Parts: sequence; C-alpha cells; structure tokens
Amino acid sequence: MKDIEIAQQVTPEPITEIAAKAGLTADQIDQYGSAKAKLKLPLPVKDTKRKLILVTSINPTPAGEGKSTVTIGLGDALTKIGKSTIIALREPSLGPVMGMKGGATGGGYSQVIPMEDINLHFTGDMHALTAANNTLAALIDNHIQQGNELNIDERRIQWKRALDINDRALRHTIIGLGGPTSGVPREDGFDITVASELMAILCLSENIADLKRRINRIVIGYTRDRKPVTVADLKVGGAIALLLKDALRPNLVQTLAHTPAFVHGGPFANIAHGCNSVLATQAGLNLADYTVTEAGFGADLGGQKFMDINVPAVGQAPNAVVIVATIRALKMHGGVALKELGTENVPALKNGLANLGHHVAAMQRYGVPVVVAINQFTADTENEIQTVKDYCANLGVEAVLADVWGQGGAGATDLAQTVVKLCDQPSEFKSIYNADDDLETKIQAIVTKTYGGAKVEYSGKAKRQLKAFAQRGWDKLPVCMAKTQYSLSDNPKLLGAPKDFTINVREFVPKLGAGFVVALTGNVLTMPGLPKHPAALDMDISDDGKISGLF
Amino acid sequence: MKDIEIAQQVTPEPITEIAAKAGLTADQIDQYGSAKAKLKLPLPVKDTKRKLILVTSINPTPAGEGKSTVTIGLGDALTKIGKSTIIALREPSLGPVMGMKGGATGGGYSQVIPMEDINLHFTGDMHALTAANNTLAALIDNHIQQGNELNIDERRIQWKRALDINDRALRHTIIGLGGPTSGVPREDGFDITVASELMAILCLSENIADLKRRINRIVIGYTRDRKPVTVADLKVGGAIALLLKDALRPNLVQTLAHTPAFVHGGPFANIAHGCNSVLATQAGLNLADYTVTEAGFGADLGGQKFMDINVPAVGQAPNAVVIVATIRALKMHGGVALKELGTENVPALKNGLANLGHHVAAMQRYGVPVVVAINQFTADTENEIQTVKDYCANLGVEAVLADVWGQGGAGATDLAQTVVKLCDQPSEFKSIYNADDDLETKIQAIVTKTYGGAKVEYSGKAKRQLKAFAQRGWDKLPVCMAKTQYSLSDNPKLLGAPKDFTINVREFVPKLGAGFVVALTGNVLTMPGLPKHPAALDMDISDDGKISGLF
Repeated sequence: MKDIEIAQQVTPEPITEIAAKAGLTADQIDQYGSAKAKLKLPLPVKDTKRKLILVTSINPTPAGEGKSTVTIGLGDALTKIGKSTIIALREPSLGPVMGMKGGATGGGYSQVIPMEDINLHFTGDMHALTAANNTLAALIDNHIQQGNELNIDERRIQWKRALDINDRALRHTIIGLGGPTSGVPREDGFDITVASELMAILCLSENIADLKRRINRIVIGYTRDRKPVTVADLKVGGAIALLLKDALRPNLVQTLAHTPAFVHGGPFANIAHGCNSVLATQAGLNLADYTVTEAGFGADLGGQKFMDINVPAVGQAPNAVVIVATIRALKMHGGVALKELGTENVPALKNGLANLGHHVAAMQRYGVPVVVAINQFTADTENEIQTVKDYCANLGVEAVLADVWGQGGAGATDLAQTVVKLCDQPSEFKSIYNADDDLETKIQAIVTKTYGGAKVEYSGKAKRQLKAFAQRGWDKLPVCMAKTQYSLSDNPKLLGAPKDFTINVREFVPKLGAGFVVALTGNVLTMPGLPKHPAALDMDISDDGKISGLF
Repeated sequence: MKDIEIAQQVTPEPITEIAAKAGLTADQIDQYGSAKAKLKLPLPVKDTKRKLILVTSINPTPAGEGKSTVTIGLGDALTKIGKSTIIALREPSLGPVMGMKGGATGGGYSQVIPMEDINLHFTGDMHALTAANNTLAALIDNHIQQGNELNIDERRIQWKRALDINDRALRHTIIGLGGPTSGVPREDGFDITVASELMAILCLSENIADLKRRINRIVIGYTRDRKPVTVADLKVGGAIALLLKDALRPNLVQTLAHTPAFVHGGPFANIAHGCNSVLATQAGLNLADYTVTEAGFGADLGGQKFMDINVPAVGQAPNAVVIVATIRALKMHGGVALKELGTENVPALKNGLANLGHHVAAMQRYGVPVVVAINQFTADTENEIQTVKDYCANLGVEAVLADVWGQGGAGATDLAQTVVKLCDQPSEFKSIYNADDDLETKIQAIVTKTYGGAKVEYSGKAKRQLKAFAQRGWDKLPVCMAKTQYSLSDNPKLLGAPKDFTINVREFVPKLGAGFVVALTGNVLTMPGLPKHPAALDMDISDDGKISGLF
C-alpha cells in the first residue's frame, strides 16, 4: 500500500484535541482547517524534565535512510510506552515533492498527517518566506533604479531571489533587461527557498524582536567602495519581518497514531543548516517530557549543524542521539550497486559499516549517548541484521531494529526503551570547536573530527573572502557547511569512510542575519533541478477532490 | 485616524458566527484562525431571490475612487435596512500593498477584517497560484532540458513565470545561463501573479473538474513547426490542479459591522479580467438575498469584463449597477491638477462630468438599471454635490451621496434603498456583442460602445496573430482588454470623455484555459514596478506583534 493510501485511511483527531494532549488550550492555537494549527506566541512555558532526542543518520542512499519515518515512529513508540512526547520535524519543500518521489512526512505507518496538506502548501510558511525574500529583492533593485542613494554595486549584490521549486533554469539569470524603465541589467540567480537566509533566520529566531534584529543584520551586498549594505540600511526590516509574523509560529499536526507533532521550518541540511525551528523544538521541550527531533541528511551535515548551530539557540543539548542506518545503505557504502541492494551481501555490509562507525564516533565526540536504529526493510536478512548488531556491540553502542514503516510505534518500542535509558544517563555536551575560533579553525575541526578528512583547500576567492571577513569582524561566526550528503567528503562518489581526503571550499556566503557563514564545498548547488520523470507527472486530483500520485 | 487603527479597534466576531449568519454550518467551512475561513466545495445551494449588485466606477484618480469602500459600505447598509446580504470582493495583491499605500480591503469605517491578514498572505491563494504558475514553468524548462520530446520552441514559450510582487527588474530576463547542467538559455519574463492565466482560471472555474479542464487547455507555447503545446501535452494538469485545490475555495471574512464577505480571487482589471471568483459570487447568490460585488477600476475595464466575461460564468446578470464617482476625480477629468483637487471648482467639475455620463451610458447599454454613488470626501462642497446630482437627474439616473468612509453602512442607507428599488425593477441583460462574433468585431464593439472611441489599429504582430488564431479556431473567444485605467482611451493622459480616438492593439495573448484572448493595448505592463518611496519603508511590527504602517 502506498503512503498516501495508508494516510487516507486514518481520520485525524480534531486539532483542538491534539493541542489538549500537548497541554495547549484552544486559546493558545489558531486552527488552519480541522487538522492543522499554529501556536500563538510567546510560547507556553511549563516546567518539565525536558529530554531532547536528536535523530540523525549515516550518509544516505538517494532514497534516504527513513530518518523522518524513524523520528515519527520513535515518537509514537515513546507515547505507547507511556511517555509524554512531542515530535519536532521540518516542513517539506514543494520543489522535491514535485521532483523526486518521497517527502518529509515519514512513510508507511509512521507519518504525520494530513500529509497531502503538509507536503503541499501546509500553513503557508514556505510561501511567506518566498514572498519576503523576493520582496526584499525587488526593494533592492528598486533602490538602485530610483537613484541608488546607498551606492549599491549592482555587480556585488549577494541577495538572490528564491522559489520553493526545483528550477535549474533560474540558477543563473540576467534581469533588468528591456530598457531604462525596466531596471538596471545585472546578473542574478534564484536559490530554492529552503536554502535562503530568511529560512535560516526563521528557524533560529526566538521571537519577533529577534526575527527583526536578524533581518536588519542581513548583508544584501556591497557598495561601490566595498562596504557591506544591510537590510537596516534599506529601512525595510519592519516590512520583511511583518511578512514573516505568522510563519514564525510553529505548526501543530499529529502522527497517524495521534501523537502531537510540531512541523516547522525546513532548511535542507546539505545547502543550509538542516534543523526545524528553534521555536518548535522549544515548544516541545516546554510541553512534553520527551521531544524527538530530526536533523537532515547524515550526522556529518544535519547532525553537526544541530550540535554547533542549533544547540546554542535552543539552549539545550540532546540527551540522546539516534543514528539511523539501513542495511541497504551500508551495503552501498560497501561497494554494492543501487539495484543490487536487495540481495544479501554480508561481506559488502561489513565493508560499509565503517561509515556507520565513523558517524557514531563523530556524534559521541559531543559527549552525548548514542544508539543506532536499524530502519528495517523487508529484504534485510537475519545475517545482515546480526552483523550490524555485532559491529555496534564492538563499538560499545546498542543497535536496535525498528520496523516503523510496517508497524508504526509498535515497531519501535525497543528503540524507545533504549532511548529512555540513554536519556537517564548523565552526559555533558561539548562542542568540537571553541566559539571564538576563527573560520578556518572551525572548518578544520569539522573536516577532521566530523568528516574524517585531512586538509581544507580554499579557492582564490575563498581566501580573499577570509581576509575581508577578518577585517569586517565576521571571522568568529559559526560555519554552515554546504556539502554533498552522499559522502563524508565533498565528492558524492566517495562512499564508506574515506580518509586523508581534502575538502575544497570554493566560496563563502556571509549570512549575518542567520548568524553564520556558509562555506560552499565541491559542486553543491543551492537550486536543485527536476529529474527526467518528475513526480508531478503522476499526480492527480479527482473531480471530488481525492488526491493521488503524491507519494 | 488611519484605516489600520480603525480596524484594530474592532474585535472580529468568531468566524463560525459569521458563517452562521450566512447560513453556513461549522461543517461547511474550514477555519483559518479565528476570523477567516474557507468554504468547502461543492457550494451549498439555497433557493433565494438572488439579487446581484455590481459596483463599478468612472476612470479613477491614482488613489482610486473608493470602490471597495463603497461596496463594503453598501453591503453593511443593506444589512442595516434588514436585507440578508453578502459581499463578494477580490483579494489584495501583495505587490501594490508593498508599493503604493492603499489596498483592496476598503477604508475608514467600511473595511473587511482582519485587514492585516487579508492584505498580507491571507489564506495563501496568491501564493498557491504563484507556486502553481512557477512549477509549470519549471516543468516546461525541464521538459526541454531532458530531451524536448514535444519539440517545444524555446523562442516561442508563452508561459511566463510570476510573482505577487511589483518587480520591474523581472519583466525581461534571460534564464538558463551557467552551462549545460543549468538549462537552455532563453528569453523569459515575470508577470505579477494577478495577471496570470491561472488567476483567471481560478476565478472562472465552477469546480475542480472545470479547473482541471481549463488548466489542461492552457497553451504554454509552440513547437518548432508552430503547433500549440498545451498543459495536457505535458501531462501535468493534475499536479497543477492539485496545487490549487484549496485556493479554489472561497474565503469567508467579515466587515467591521460583521456582515459576511467572500474575499476571493484577485485579477487586476487593467491587465486581467478584474472580477472576484465566480464561486464567491455564486456562494453569495446561493446564501443571501443580496450579493454586492465589485469589478476593478472603471466601468470601461472591470465593468465591461464583468458583463461580457463574468456574467456568462456566474450564470446571472446584475440586477443593478452602482457607478462610484468622486468629486475629486470628476474635477481631474475636467482638467484640474492632482494637488488642486481639494478646492471647489464647479466649472471644472461640469467639464469632467462627461466621463461619468459616458460610463452611465455604457453600463445602461447592457440593459440593467444604474445608480451613481458619490463617494463623499470632506472637501466636497454643497455646490459640487448638487452639480453632480443635477447632471445625473438630467440623464434620468439617481445620484446618491454616500459617506461610507466616515460612517460605514450608516452613511449608505439611502444608496441601499435606491439599490433595493432598482433591483425590483424588471431588466433584461443584453451583451454588447454576439458570442460568435470574431475577435476584431468584439474589440470594435468594446471600443465603440464602451470606450467611445472610433478605430482600432493592430500592430503587424497583432495582425499576424489574428490570422493564426482564425486558423486555430480561437477567433470566436471573448476578449479581455489590457488597457490603462486612467482613460477611456489607451493613453493615460487623455482624461474626460475623449472622442474619435484610436485604440492600438500591439499584441494578443491567447489564454485558452481562461477561455479568452487578452489584447494588449498602449503601453500597459503586466508587471508593475515599485515607486520611489515604497510603502514597505513605513511598515513595522512591534515586539509584541502589533502592526503599523500597513495603511
């Protein structure tokens, strides 16, 4: 049965009842239809034990490791074993939904619903971000057209336009053509909305005051004499914040088993910081004993960024980390071709386990207890499962089988018990670098400790930027690495646990509003394209409104 | 007091109560927060007397004639005199909200609320249209990139991208730059979302089946051998319809006096067809004795399009037409400069009244009773008001003073009584052209009868298009004129009631999904720009969420 068919069999409980389960009164939410709501700000504060669980993974196959599915299944399992639990997830981007099959609402019997709405426009957060992003872009070009009082260099505008669509044709554009009444011609380009600085800002802001402060700090480009120009200089921070006032509020939905879930904010973890909003995680911590959250792609991407960018903003480190692995992906890391992954292959599996081992060590380095969740597939054999368990036992880490796709929460009660046990262990969070290290030191720490690489090479441009950033006082900011999700290195073809590799930083993008500097490595793109057969071709809606082909 | 301050003083009634007033049960709506809702489809049907009132205007000043304000005030006044009434309005576009001060939620004591939400993202309809529009664009460029099976000529793609933003720099662009992995370079451009074909389709669709049918009919461009390529050929009609499933549902809000209002669909009347959705108007007609709706800009634009495009789709002609005029605009048409409009000037007013007289005659030609509403400004003098009344009396038309800005419904009870009286008159609707007339005949009829012009001149391109359209069987479609709102002619500087002028059609845009052909006249642009001092500069949101500067 398809995910959408499973989802359509379950009638959501009224969102007011889900809110009540989470300890929220009807006054603390705004309903968006009968099964979605937005929290009102400021967040309700409740005194709790506050256990935070981070779900991350090994380097995934192109189909993903089922991290969201495990996150949701684990949340349902914790509820099942009697723990007050809230799930915090990112919201899906429409671009990949229309492109590749698969979304961010889980799968099988571990899904958040209404999945059709969540995967399409949901409560409009992505669209608000897109509108805010492009309104700012229009205001910049209008400023130049109307006399350019700030002396903005149109060759050095950093603020790109954005759409929540996979549209490769918009990566590199020329705009402002058509003569003097249609603007100043210049090079431009579009990023996907989830890679935008406003998305990062939305996810990291504590409240409206913080949102405005961050927006005003955004560097949109440089003057002819190379001075940074900010949104504050343009005097439009208020308007842009206004456009995000509702998008800032966490969205409440439920799982198929009716566990409350905040689905809010959706930066990709390869080209952005990969964590749901700080407010959603905090709302979980304020309301429930256990909050289960997920960071995108592998522990090298979302995992590292959660620890070094998100934890300081949330104000709490995870009490346990779950690393999701599939036998399939481990065999891929061991050299098996994609189409052969359904066949038992213990030697290849053993080969590929180094990838898992690497991520376990990388996460343990932060001082938090780790458990491995084997996200079960029907083709997995006893031998293979035992191989993974033995390998993990050797590392001193438990590996727990979870059948969340097939059984929902019932398939993850063992995992839930282990997580509860780990959360009760004392742990002391420590970062992999010091906050006041410079950018190069931070990047070297990430490359060495998290990726297992050796050297970092900077392009000529990146070197010039490092120098300029130091002069501007931006050299102590956190780093957000933009890197392929498929490999620990910046080469997507280098699987397993490569050693002695070099990471190539080709360019930095200062995101002062987000409060970090993005380092673009390898060939990673901030605007994806559509595949040969986009998922859109298979979607339909019947005359009476029934949706098909969405997943 | 500013509009936003007046609006913020009124607490909206719970939208469930407004729905109940309109005869809707809680099951027939989905709440979007406490003061907005979307109707569920299919529409509830109720047997009523079904009176439809169209509010239109003379050619406006740049600030507008206050047509929405009169529409809302009239709706409140009808309610006040005991008539069951629903208002149907277009939803605002974010572009002008951020650009020029003024929106589409009325003003003073005649507003629809929550005005902040309605003027910003509202229930996401505009954003859904933008996303659907640009998803289709990305699918087109991806089709070409992936082998171009349909042989689409990238020089003849008609489908433009769209944003709900005033962004002149996107009028003419080059996309697909950056080498072979980033698409095929070609000329492109963005329209404002309200000018998009999808907006027209949304506004004209009867239900989801009709929506899909129309989307599949859209001509996105031509093959290398000049054959039209449709959305059906691309096989993505289902996906695009899916993206519009909720946007198709009318939005319910309320006036400051708590009269139910459907605010849904927002095409501009100069560059698009200018009427709210057919479903919103039909919902009004199904639920209330009186439905008051508005068509954008003057009777030459929204008025004509309502009669010739919207009436056949709604299935009912107006029982009365209200033509809004301000003394200010009439003096402008009489030759007074903008900054002198606050001073009494009866001779100039008399001069300008020809514009009003012309619109009255143009609307009477459709066979429906007409009343003139003088939208009162504080600077209007007794002499001036009497001059307008006398002029109208001479035409055999009543002119009624309405102080809707200052008094809300209480300022329009006379107007409401007159409207009720007119609605009880028998009337027989007749179009100004025959449905099977060809495009040239239809345009000539509009120019002669509605604009009062003489000739139509077609550019070389337009002539070639007429020929091609005849061969393709598109020559009997209705016409949607794109023309300046400031003049009856296509020259915005030609005020009053010019005669013997020529309308210049420079290009046609076939919109087979909408079911009409757009004729672009004069210099009218489908993507506006921002002014020197955009309204965005004055907007703000306080730390506790209070909005200022929006209006």
